[in-house]
Amino acid sequence: MMNFQGSHILSVSQFDRTAISRILQVSALMAPYAERKKRCHVLDGAILNNLFFEPSTRTRVSFGAAFNLLGGFVRETVGVENSSLSKGESLFDTAQVISGYSDVIAMRHPTMHSVTEFAQGSTVPVINGGDGANEHPTQALLDLFTIESEMKRFGKSLDGLNIVLMGDLKHGRTVHSLSKLLSLYNKIKITLVSPIALQMPESIVSALSNAGHQVIITDKIAGNLACDVIYQTRIQQERFASKDEANLYRGHFSLNKRIYQEYCKEHTVIMHPLPRDSRPEANELDTDLNDLENLAIFRQAQNGVLVRMALFALTLGVDEKLSQYEKPVTWFTKK
Amino acid sequence: MMNFQGSHILSVSQFDRTAISRILQVSALMAPYAERKKRCHVLDGAILNNLFFEPSTRTRVSFGAAFNLLGGFVRETVGVENSSLSKGESLFDTAQVISGYSDVIAMRHPTMHSVTEFAQGSTVPVINGGDGANEHPTQALLDLFTIESEMKRFGKSLDGLNIVLMGDLKHGRTVHSLSKLLSLYNKIKITLVSPIALQMPESIVSALSNAGHQVIITDKIAGNLACDVIYQTRIQQERFASKDEANLYRGHFSLNKRIYQEYCKEHTVIMHPLPRDSRPEANELDTDLNDLENLAIFRQAQNGVLVRMALFALTLGVDEKLSQYEKPVTWFTKK
Amino acid sequence: MMNFQGSHILSVSQFDRTAISRILQVSALMAPYAERKKRCHVLDGAILNNLFFEPSTRTRVSFGAAFNLLGGFVRETVGVENSSLSKGESLFDTAQVISGYSDVIAMRHPTMHSVTEFAQGSTVPVINGGDGANEHPTQALLDLFTIESEMKRFGKSLDGLNIVLMGDLKHGRTVHSLSKLLSLYNKIKITLVSPIALQMPESIVSALSNAGHQVIITDKIAGNLACDVIYQTRIQQERFASKDEANLYRGHFSLNKRIYQEYCKEHTVIMHPLPRDSRPEANELDTDLNDLENLAIFRQAQNGVLVRMALFALTLGVDEKLSQYEKPVTWFTKK
Repeated sequence: MMNFQGSHILSVSQFDRTAISRILQVSALMAPYAERKKRCHVLDGAILNNLFFEPSTRTRVSFGAAFNLLGGFVRETVGVENSSLSKGESLFDTAQVISGYSDVIAMRHPTMHSVTEFAQGSTVPVINGGDGANEHPTQALLDLFTIESEMKRFGKSLDGLNIVLMGDLKHGRTVHSLSKLLSLYNKIKITLVSPIALQMPESIVSALSNAGHQVIITDKIAGNLACDVIYQTRIQQERFASKDEANLYRGHFSLNKRIYQEYCKEHTVIMHPLPRDSRPEANELDTDLNDLENLAIFRQAQNGVLVRMALFALTLGVDEKLSQYEKPVTWFTKK
Repeated sequence: MMNFQGSHILSVSQFDRTAISRILQVSALMAPYAERKKRCHVLDGAILNNLFFEPSTRTRVSFGAAFNLLGGFVRETVGVENSSLSKGESLFDTAQVISGYSDVIAMRHPTMHSVTEFAQGSTVPVINGGDGANEHPTQALLDLFTIESEMKRFGKSLDGLNIVLMGDLKHGRTVHSLSKLLSLYNKIKITLVSPIALQMPESIVSALSNAGHQVIITDKIAGNLACDVIYQTRIQQERFASKDEANLYRGHFSLNKRIYQEYCKEHTVIMHPLPRDSRPEANELDTDLNDLENLAIFRQAQNGVLVRMALFALTLGVDEKLSQYEKPVTWFTKK
Repeated sequence: MMNFQGSHILSVSQFDRTAISRILQVSALMAPYAERKKRCHVLDGAILNNLFFEPSTRTRVSFGAAFNLLGGFVRETVGVENSSLSKGESLFDTAQVISGYSDVIAMRHPTMHSVTEFAQGSTVPVINGGDGANEHPTQALLDLFTIESEMKRFGKSLDGLNIVLMGDLKHGRTVHSLSKLLSLYNKIKITLVSPIALQMPESIVSALSNAGHQVIITDKIAGNLACDVIYQTRIQQERFASKDEANLYRGHFSLNKRIYQEYCKEHTVIMHPLPRDSRPEANELDTDLNDLENLAIFRQAQNGVLVRMALFALTLGVDEKLSQYEKPVTWFTKK
């Protein structure tokens, strides 16, 4: 088994299938704590520094809550304007100093590869919470964990699945990273539904094909959504020359109850990285799907906590002693 | 007794007198912990998400400290600019996600009724920390708790009191909510002192009258301040057509030692929601009152912690097991 | 021994040598906890309010981590825009309210003497984290602690040392406060290397001379750096009439490996208050020194945590019971 102790978590590319399996396995162990069946204080007294040099409420709160759920303290920094980085301090220096105040660090930063550069100066494990257009490995891991756990309900595993990725596949960081992880598994059918101008980068398509997967590239919904999982990403208007051009694609690549019932299977699970734009003109993932049991988007967000708990436990080497540090939950909970 | 477990706290209107009594009773139980006579860790391991989409240092820190005083962890978000809400995410979606990372949520938001909308998507109790011009129920509860506890010093209870509300009664959210709570009690004499243009809304006056209280409406201080409690709110200059017009009212509705000694009783207690504008031109609640034992404004602010502790304990169902989770305070304290 | 319980820490001038010795002694006791040899939960349940009305990531996180390392909770406020202070509330009122929510307060504020004014309204100890151009006592204490601990490696103590302060000595708050502390010790040789326009204020030079120290004032590096400790501060371009004028001094008062090897002793320890400007044009403290064992700048930053832990322990009166509240560290650590 791979030893995660003291490691940085910087990219999905650093893991082989065995490592991924271990992360997903430990994530599943975290469910009873997140669901408040019981609680765990294995990291009682430990300190996370949650450095969000680029703001992101959801990811920041998820990292912090994950650490609290294991009993640890969280120190937090939001925004680069408050930072020594703006006075010309190098990421190496910042890392040397802040890691001295931490047991582990989660970091988001707007610049590509900045988290890796930071990690080189850190004396404690660093977990990449997103470095610009480059990587957001915990999102990809929670997506994979979600696919695995949703498929379990139907007696299926990751191998042999039929998955649709739909929307802006050119710019979507999440679908790129997820595709890299899927490459580690066997005989997946992956249908890439997007406007021609927004197709998945060729390098990722090749990697999927070379891994023995069946890849279908299309710009049509009809006939292409009869899958196990459909992963929807937003059509980002700002990527187009004009709002009018963006509007050409709207509706063609959105999902609502009518489209779901017409083109998907009865058991097709819907995923989305969130936040979902719920304004009427967004036409992205309709709220009329909210009562659908197979809409997994909120379970997906909750899984983010499990995966982040797992990464803290693994990098800090406590993944095998969780059960020694359990306590009952003594307050009211509906979870 | 009303069961608060799992309930949202959205408005003072949701409570009857029995429920209010229980909240005030539990608030009083919290005093020894807040005063550091002993401490309580009944919420050890629980997570509050303190969502201040509209900044408010005092209220935010008070909620957070209240949760820490019961042993729980606090995650915090300040300002809407960092939030997924700005990307078109609905309050329902935000609530679904964040409540998954929480055991309880306190939320302030600039938009009326937004906290109620949010609560509909939340899987955990939500406490309204102020939703624009609408409600700020914990302020009203701490005001009521303060009146009750200050009156105890003089052997009086809420029933039969003689209370003056003074200042801008038209726009003051705090005096509206407090009036609604006072309606639940018996035979109160309420004197409403304000400029004619800033009188208490008719609906609230009617509710007080219909509840059997004696209501006096006046724009004169002389002869009207001989009461048990005077609750002062600020004359908000921005509500007037001009600074000159606002200045017409200044001094007539402010309080200082001279006015207090001339018009109030010896035992009249002074309250104010704070912050108090202490700039010389503000003419609001003079600092020459600071050495007056009956100036309750800072005790009032401290009571905010007790009431918020009580609401956390009640909604999380631990109000009856506080004493099982006590520990001594082992550090130096003057409190 | 001085009793620190309940005291404010506002200025280095409030301490005599006995008090300083006690602070340094307790700081040293904190090392095993900060280095994760073991942990200490003596302040379990206590609340620090970390009020950074002026942002400073490094100092803020250091105060917060120090409190967490002793087991306590941290509430935090960053920036004055979110504060009641902006609505005309006096520092006295703010202190009355916030101290009611706290066991101890750390505060940074852009206005000189504001922290002292605030402390007058506080019911709990207040530690000055920097009040504008006035004081930053924890920086001076960590600098002194660093000199002492670095010199121990060479069998030397603070008395009799040979120290160089170099850079902008006119405006550098840190070198002023450090000089005041050094005045308390015996027979130090202090060489002040700066541009003539940026010399150390006469009052501080006099205080050093009057304390019996040997003071050398020079604007030349050659022949003046053969010392035990060189404390480098930045040449702040904004203090000069023009960038060109600032550039006249660059290189003359910077430090790199070549200058170090030519002018310093083999054992000369390099200090700097950080952040260091690592942009190529900064010419301040070159990164080619990073592999030098005697570059103490990162150990210096770590020492900030020890000194802040010590001040929390002393003001809260727990400095003599640390060992009663020790626990093992159960997670992986490289420290």
